[in-house]
Amino acid sequence: MTSSVVSVEAVTAAGGAGISDVMDRVEERMATLAGDYGPLLAHHARATISAGGKRLRPLLVCLASGVPVIESDALIRAAVAVELVHAATLVHDDVLDGASLRRGRPTVVVSGGRLLATATGDLLFSRAFAELAGGGEVEAVRALSRAASGLAAGELMQREDAWRMDVSVERYLERCRLKTAVLFRGACELGAMCGGGGVSGLGHFGESIGLAFQLLDDILDVTGPPERTGKPRGADLLDGTVTLPLIVARERDPVLARLDLRTLRGPDEAAEVCDRILPTGALDVARERAFGMVAEAKAQLPLLPDRQRTALMLVADGVVERYS
Amino acid sequence: MTSSVVSVEAVTAAGGAGISDVMDRVEERMATLAGDYGPLLAHHARATISAGGKRLRPLLVCLASGVPVIESDALIRAAVAVELVHAATLVHDDVLDGASLRRGRPTVVVSGGRLLATATGDLLFSRAFAELAGGGEVEAVRALSRAASGLAAGELMQREDAWRMDVSVERYLERCRLKTAVLFRGACELGAMCGGGGVSGLGHFGESIGLAFQLLDDILDVTGPPERTGKPRGADLLDGTVTLPLIVARERDPVLARLDLRTLRGPDEAAEVCDRILPTGALDVARERAFGMVAEAKAQLPLLPDRQRTALMLVADGVVERYS
Repeated sequence: MTSSVVSVEAVTAAGGAGISDVMDRVEERMATLAGDYGPLLAHHARATISAGGKRLRPLLVCLASGVPVIESDALIRAAVAVELVHAATLVHDDVLDGASLRRGRPTVVVSGGRLLATATGDLLFSRAFAELAGGGEVEAVRALSRAASGLAAGELMQREDAWRMDVSVERYLERCRLKTAVLFRGACELGAMCGGGGVSGLGHFGESIGLAFQLLDDILDVTGPPERTGKPRGADLLDGTVTLPLIVARERDPVLARLDLRTLRGPDEAAEVCDRILPTGALDVARERAFGMVAEAKAQLPLLPDRQRTALMLVADGVVERYS
Repeated sequence: MTSSVVSVEAVTAAGGAGISDVMDRVEERMATLAGDYGPLLAHHARATISAGGKRLRPLLVCLASGVPVIESDALIRAAVAVELVHAATLVHDDVLDGASLRRGRPTVVVSGGRLLATATGDLLFSRAFAELAGGGEVEAVRALSRAASGLAAGELMQREDAWRMDVSVERYLERCRLKTAVLFRGACELGAMCGGGGVSGLGHFGESIGLAFQLLDDILDVTGPPERTGKPRGADLLDGTVTLPLIVARERDPVLARLDLRTLRGPDEAAEVCDRILPTGALDVARERAFGMVAEAKAQLPLLPDRQRTALMLVADGVVERYS
């Protein structure tokens, strides 16, 4: 499955060749790390960290550091660390979901079992901090650990809210902030540190587009198409995860208002609920909210060199333009 | 279950009142952290990080920093961080083992389910690094991430070696080093940094007594008693984990040499294997090896003030004197 939000090529065209050089170094470094822990991890970690993915977070680290991008050891380490934390959470999520495919390949949990997948996730997590500490900036470690704590707290919140049909929009947005946006923020903060700049403005930018990214993910869960998203429509519904499209649709359709997700008996019924959400217009509400977040993020960007601003805006637009 | 290796009281008597003051601050700080992430985590994290345990690793951090112990923010943070990493691995281990009791209380996985337990472990892990980064020493973060990577690699190695009856002593010891001794080493290194001293000598001390600690754990799996260890005899055997007692016993008893752990059908048969290991003398071999490690660790201690040396030796002896 490919779900590119924005191509490195397009951003490189806007921001200069340094970007693709740094992204290549990030890939090399991750491939090296995958081989560092013996054959078992090499096999499974490669399936996770070298199998591709959007590399959106390393790209943000890179662009937040400044354009033209100056390749430095600290920058590569920061970009790798952010992606490793992301990879670690994916591995653990797959353990919990019992997911069988990720990025078109068998997940670690399916090919190696739960124990191996949990340990692989823990290792990726530890390696992220080792990688960052190797760069020598304690403030960077702080930013990443804040983000990683947020991700875990977001997972806990999702668990806490599972099957609760009365989740408020505010609480839903706070969950999105924790489980997704904090790492986008962290990526921008780490990049800004590597560039020697302040973190305030870019951190906010990262958080806003991260929120929009999660909203789009939740919209795509309803619309599919499965062959692009890599999972059946309504997968969130079957997990008991109530997201913005359903929250809004329940206000507009009395049948949905009475729905209890626990009663869904499989993917076909989940797809029926998705079909029922469509005519309520809830997806437009969610989409507009995501577009609004991106517009606000762009408007609030701090004063930056033109090429850096253009490149960051490309990424911001890419976040909400997936499959649209 | 209490399985005190060495009492804080005894070490305080040897090393001064500062020790129990610091250990009290560590407990307070961990209790505060447990309440920091909303009611769900507060409930489950409290069951894990506030439920006691030996606090052996924070004690090592404390003693490695010097005696009399000077209470400092960095020292408290380091001691808490090491214990949080330990707690995180326990929570994840329990997920994988489906363990129902830990320290005499229901495990997070039993009371909250796998998702919650995995996220709780991840959060404890992230918080450990946040805690340490708050102290401002990047070298400390490096030491902890080295240790945490080792723990995860050790878990992976144990998985890789599961059900393999031909595991060598060398490979067994390397597994013990990774899954246990690296964090003892990390505790000593972090403590030495807080005290302003070098890490070389105390790191080796930590690793050696950590190895001995794991050997004793593996001996106790064979001997019990279950009411002290908190688990049935032979639990390792049922998990397919081949440890030193069995490796040695297989060299001495042809029936054990032909044993395939996969054929064991439950705790009664595991206990029978334990009974068969006893007369081979394998436990004495393992115990002597552990005692030798502790003796070597004590002999190789760098030049230290008398009270610090005495306190560290008390801990070293405690590691191998459990239930003996």
